[in-house]
Amino acid sequence: MADKVESFVRSKIFTYEKDPRCEDHGPTDDLVQEMRALAREAGVLTPHIKDDSSHFSHLDTALILRKSGLSPLGPLAVNTFAPDEGNMYLLGKCASPEQKKRFLDQLVEGTSRSAFFMTEPADENGAGSDPSMMLTTAKPDGNHWVINGRKTFITGAKGAKVGIIMAKSDDGATMFLVDLPDPAIKIERVLDTIDSSMPGSHSVVNIDNLRVPADQMLGESGEGFKYAQVRLAPARLTHCMRWLGCCDRAQEIASDYACKRQAFGKPLVDHEGVGFMLAENQIDLKQAEMMIDWCASVLDTGDLGTTESSMAKVAVSEALFRIADNCVQVMGGTGLSKDTVVEQVFREVRAFRVYDGPTEVHKWSLAKKIKKAHKIANEG
Amino acid sequence: MADKVESFVRSKIFTYEKDPRCEDHGPTDDLVQEMRALAREAGVLTPHIKDDSSHFSHLDTALILRKSGLSPLGPLAVNTFAPDEGNMYLLGKCASPEQKKRFLDQLVEGTSRSAFFMTEPADENGAGSDPSMMLTTAKPDGNHWVINGRKTFITGAKGAKVGIIMAKSDDGATMFLVDLPDPAIKIERVLDTIDSSMPGSHSVVNIDNLRVPADQMLGESGEGFKYAQVRLAPARLTHCMRWLGCCDRAQEIASDYACKRQAFGKPLVDHEGVGFMLAENQIDLKQAEMMIDWCASVLDTGDLGTTESSMAKVAVSEALFRIADNCVQVMGGTGLSKDTVVEQVFREVRAFRVYDGPTEVHKWSLAKKIKKAHKIANEG
Amino acid sequence: MADKVESFVRSKIFTYEKDPRCEDHGPTDDLVQEMRALAREAGVLTPHIKDDSSHFSHLDTALILRKSGLSPLGPLAVNTFAPDEGNMYLLGKCASPEQKKRFLDQLVEGTSRSAFFMTEPADENGAGSDPSMMLTTAKPDGNHWVINGRKTFITGAKGAKVGIIMAKSDDGATMFLVDLPDPAIKIERVLDTIDSSMPGSHSVVNIDNLRVPADQMLGESGEGFKYAQVRLAPARLTHCMRWLGCCDRAQEIASDYACKRQAFGKPLVDHEGVGFMLAENQIDLKQAEMMIDWCASVLDTGDLGTTESSMAKVAVSEALFRIADNCVQVMGGTGLSKDTVVEQVFREVRAFRVYDGPTEVHKWSLAKKIKKAHKIANEG
Amino acid sequence: MADKVESFVRSKIFTYEKDPRCEDHGPTDDLVQEMRALAREAGVLTPHIKDDSSHFSHLDTALILRKSGLSPLGPLAVNTFAPDEGNMYLLGKCASPEQKKRFLDQLVEGTSRSAFFMTEPADENGAGSDPSMMLTTAKPDGNHWVINGRKTFITGAKGAKVGIIMAKSDDGATMFLVDLPDPAIKIERVLDTIDSSMPGSHSVVNIDNLRVPADQMLGESGEGFKYAQVRLAPARLTHCMRWLGCCDRAQEIASDYACKRQAFGKPLVDHEGVGFMLAENQIDLKQAEMMIDWCASVLDTGDLGTTESSMAKVAVSEALFRIADNCVQVMGGTGLSKDTVVEQVFREVRAFRVYDGPTEVHKWSLAKKIKKAHKIANEG
Repeated sequence: MADKVESFVRSKIFTYEKDPRCEDHGPTDDLVQEMRALAREAGVLTPHIKDDSSHFSHLDTALILRKSGLSPLGPLAVNTFAPDEGNMYLLGKCASPEQKKRFLDQLVEGTSRSAFFMTEPADENGAGSDPSMMLTTAKPDGNHWVINGRKTFITGAKGAKVGIIMAKSDDGATMFLVDLPDPAIKIERVLDTIDSSMPGSHSVVNIDNLRVPADQMLGESGEGFKYAQVRLAPARLTHCMRWLGCCDRAQEIASDYACKRQAFGKPLVDHEGVGFMLAENQIDLKQAEMMIDWCASVLDTGDLGTTESSMAKVAVSEALFRIADNCVQVMGGTGLSKDTVVEQVFREVRAFRVYDGPTEVHKWSLAKKIKKAHKIANEG
Repeated sequence: MADKVESFVRSKIFTYEKDPRCEDHGPTDDLVQEMRALAREAGVLTPHIKDDSSHFSHLDTALILRKSGLSPLGPLAVNTFAPDEGNMYLLGKCASPEQKKRFLDQLVEGTSRSAFFMTEPADENGAGSDPSMMLTTAKPDGNHWVINGRKTFITGAKGAKVGIIMAKSDDGATMFLVDLPDPAIKIERVLDTIDSSMPGSHSVVNIDNLRVPADQMLGESGEGFKYAQVRLAPARLTHCMRWLGCCDRAQEIASDYACKRQAFGKPLVDHEGVGFMLAENQIDLKQAEMMIDWCASVLDTGDLGTTESSMAKVAVSEALFRIADNCVQVMGGTGLSKDTVVEQVFREVRAFRVYDGPTEVHKWSLAKKIKKAHKIANEG
Repeated sequence: MADKVESFVRSKIFTYEKDPRCEDHGPTDDLVQEMRALAREAGVLTPHIKDDSSHFSHLDTALILRKSGLSPLGPLAVNTFAPDEGNMYLLGKCASPEQKKRFLDQLVEGTSRSAFFMTEPADENGAGSDPSMMLTTAKPDGNHWVINGRKTFITGAKGAKVGIIMAKSDDGATMFLVDLPDPAIKIERVLDTIDSSMPGSHSVVNIDNLRVPADQMLGESGEGFKYAQVRLAPARLTHCMRWLGCCDRAQEIASDYACKRQAFGKPLVDHEGVGFMLAENQIDLKQAEMMIDWCASVLDTGDLGTTESSMAKVAVSEALFRIADNCVQVMGGTGLSKDTVVEQVFREVRAFRVYDGPTEVHKWSLAKKIKKAHKIANEG
Repeated sequence: MADKVESFVRSKIFTYEKDPRCEDHGPTDDLVQEMRALAREAGVLTPHIKDDSSHFSHLDTALILRKSGLSPLGPLAVNTFAPDEGNMYLLGKCASPEQKKRFLDQLVEGTSRSAFFMTEPADENGAGSDPSMMLTTAKPDGNHWVINGRKTFITGAKGAKVGIIMAKSDDGATMFLVDLPDPAIKIERVLDTIDSSMPGSHSVVNIDNLRVPADQMLGESGEGFKYAQVRLAPARLTHCMRWLGCCDRAQEIASDYACKRQAFGKPLVDHEGVGFMLAENQIDLKQAEMMIDWCASVLDTGDLGTTESSMAKVAVSEALFRIADNCVQVMGGTGLSKDTVVEQVFREVRAFRVYDGPTEVHKWSLAKKIKKAHKIANEG
């Protein structure tokens, strides 16, 4: 399947990278649907989910998603992109049969998009990277829940048909499924950000007295963080997989450039200052691959993989940034221009160092675990 | 003067940073002229050149240009931006009185912009970072010269009124002054690049049988590299000055953010992971300032400052990138968004690590000088 | 077996780390034999070679050697140390049965040590890191060969009983086995170096008309580089394995320190500046482990693993240095003192970044392969 | 004076670097006195203090001490070494005329050495890098004070004739001057550390009912931290000056090596991988010099320079470590051996990153000041 995806992305999708419908706020849904029609035809749509609705193992998924990521457009074309891939995973694990039919099927078929409403604005002393500070509330009202709050950085909210909303009931964090758009969910503004690969970009959203029927609660009241955990590590890891594919591509482009262009009397690649950067990239790519595969294998055992996915997120995102930065530098002015996809990869990977928990939050969490492990070892 | 410039940029220019006329290809000339009218009124237009046409010392210029750089729009507003600042410097040093009157005065008055046509496309085995590979030719034809060639990354070419063109005569590299636009100079395309602060952005330009009267030659035939040297180190250094100002600003914004926002129970700045980044920035800013001032002092002695400006370019551009990267990281999602100017500073400074000679070319040149110094010392 | 080795090193060898026989030029042979007697008794001597003389797979060896490395003395105690481990591997693969009996058996039994005479002094325009510049010659003389030359950085030469000498015959590089000491092989001086874990340290050696019977040639004349290749990648990798074990230990010690000591009102580990260093180490340790295992798996397929072992050497040695450096820093003054083994690990790992090919030589070689692969791909 | 010192160190002291009296615990006092006799004769003993007992400005001192540092032995030879240089500065500022005559004069004349008893062991929940946790007490008893406590990392304690002891009276931290040795001050053990330049090395010291006459109190009771501040920033900075000189030397040696030795067909320096390291060093050396000079100029205004010396300590110590590490790497095996002083410089500078406040403590302190400055700016 990975081979099929690679071949599809290389032959059909690369060509769309200069399509004017790749806008600052991400590719338009028109472009997405055009590419998906091709993917459907080629048998590579939603390639990580099998016909019987089961998922490939995390380890198999790693290769499939990596290949889909060879173009920033690839994951959109074959429906392995964020946040939908993670949302499909969550619904597959936690939704009722009725909920799956209503909300999940359209996502798997690639006919619509979804959004995950969790992060809250830091500027109101809200959650930011710290989910315990969530302010959005869900109050019961007869057979409904009434949700009020404000969310930010909601990827793909604009244009999504399916929403998963996290709010606090009296029992704790709780998730709800909703159809979108909904007049009670207002997109205050679409953020202008450094990255541009996500359709609908990222939005600030106001939720004002949204009424949700009780049967649209995902699982149980107060269990929202538990379900978020189900999604958390795998979704964090699929980001790594896709961006690894993008950096494979950047390295291909930069190597080709360095082998073909001359400077000061010899090919660029023969300058150690350039050749060393490509060599470092080759090592970083290998290490990123192995961190992903290791974490995927842990997830395949049924473990939550919190520690492993924190380690993988830090290692992979920082490695990919070094790679992308080196590729830009190897290519000089061309690396800074949109003539190749390297420039976009650089911007996307910069954002990735923040998204899904900045490096520093993961290190903080790892340090806490080192302390805890020490305590257990010394008391045991 | 530096204080006046700072006060002007803070009070009048910051507010333009979200003006829709700040486009991907740089601010429009309409916006530039609107800001310059304010600068003229405030007595801060072209602040580094005195009324008697002499320049402030390089050391004084360092502070003035740094303050102008507090906004990416500042250098445009007060006319200290690249490539015009460097072009004005070159014309002031090398042009004849007639040439000054015709080409320089309009630039000093800030009523028009200029472009410097030197870099050639690497994809034709052309110059890239290596000026010795220049392919553009100048052939004498009666009292005229006929220029043919192709140039790339010509900053500000679109919309410029004055052009300085480097071409090879039989005597060697030679510079010519031309009025723009000219039908023989065709802008093939304006590059889409990661940076967006330069009006007119960067263009690929085709020069097809451009006829230039002999009196528009700058200085002598074959002396082009000598004049380029005059411009080289100072122009390289003024880039450092302006971008240092931009990073001062980014640090201000990130510090403010870190002191006001809370995460995990305390202000961000109280997290060592965040506070250390700001502390490192403070050190890097100081070091960047001192490298600039040192190199400026060397230039003020009349020295060409080739070594010093290479050292300064490497040290300052790499330091500023660390600073900008830290500022983005400190601010998390907000750092990635265009809600503050930090996101743009990050992109601009990334480009700066390549423009005016990538870091690697300068290190290469420094290593050559270390070898040469060793040889002299051992033979001396 | 790895568990047995770990348990042995922890319970029996740690205690020798402050033995005064750990001298600047490495542990004395007296100490080595005392520890080996314990290892023999515990059934962990030469643990990576099975009773039938076959070796464990490279992948299994990785874990055994890592555990032996938990103390800098461990590899000496259990006979997995360099250069003997690599020499045993080479003789096992390339020596004749008679040669094995005479030279290999004593090494496997741990009763004597060996040395590998390859590197030549750079100060005579000799080989240094560049084996093609070898100046040592082997001339046939009847049924003998006469060897002349000068070698440097010959680890363990002082005190070794077995020598493997690389010299150039008319056919090319050739290896010879010799008993040591030999009056024709003079140790000019034992180098004082930053590391101190190797018994006999590293010597400069002069070979003056050494006569070697023809049956002590290893394999064929002119095939020396081929045999060196057999030894090269595995020996490079076992270095990685052992030093990884040492850094596991350093991390244990530093974590323990950081959890127990207080500064500015809380345990050191609760300072992000400290906790982040430990978290980075945890990630680096994992990545080092995976690079080693990956390369070992490639070697287990029978591949020479030149590229993979270059990648592993660079990645692992640089990662281990960051780890050791962080451990020193976490522990402050205590990290600088010989009160714990961390100080030695730091020095040893610094040396490791140079030994077996400095980082830069491997990057250079990787860049060459990137260029070659590009050429093949474009012509293919 | 700086020229005289440089010339003296180069011509008279370099030759002592391989003297066997350079022991692991530092040069012997015998060697120190032999070198000082030469310095006295050459008129360069205690060169930073003028004949009228006044000090050169901090800025002038920077150059003198840098030149004295060209050899690790230089500061000992000319009496600019730590901790004596700082102790002389402190006594010159804070001691009474009688105290100066008794304790300071012998130090300035270079006939004896001194020690500063401040740091306490971290393993007793003592001070470590955190002076507020000091446990050593001073109790009045008639016209005497009785001091009890335990100190660690007391540089030069063994062999010192003059001691400055910090202890807590009821008024707070207080300093006392004592003659050494004294039976109540027992050197528990001399630490074995990675560095080896300080005579007497660093000791753990037990103070058991030490009786000190009241007139040996330095200044007033409870003012100890104030006096420590007087010494703090200048002493921190003189470390930077001396080690900068050492790294100047390492760069000289490594450049010479790289220009003379060949590898893979050309001089090492022509390999970009090597030449770039030397170029980076050149930049780092310049930046270290400027940070020192800037901080010295601030101290010359009478300012305490706490922020500036923290910035300088972090920037300079980290830069010098990069330089020393690069020099080792450039020289390969030779860099690891004690054949040149580069190996020692590497070890000394590693220690310097911890001594006088580890990098992390200074960043922590700088972050606190950024927060405070923000508060003041926003309230002002």
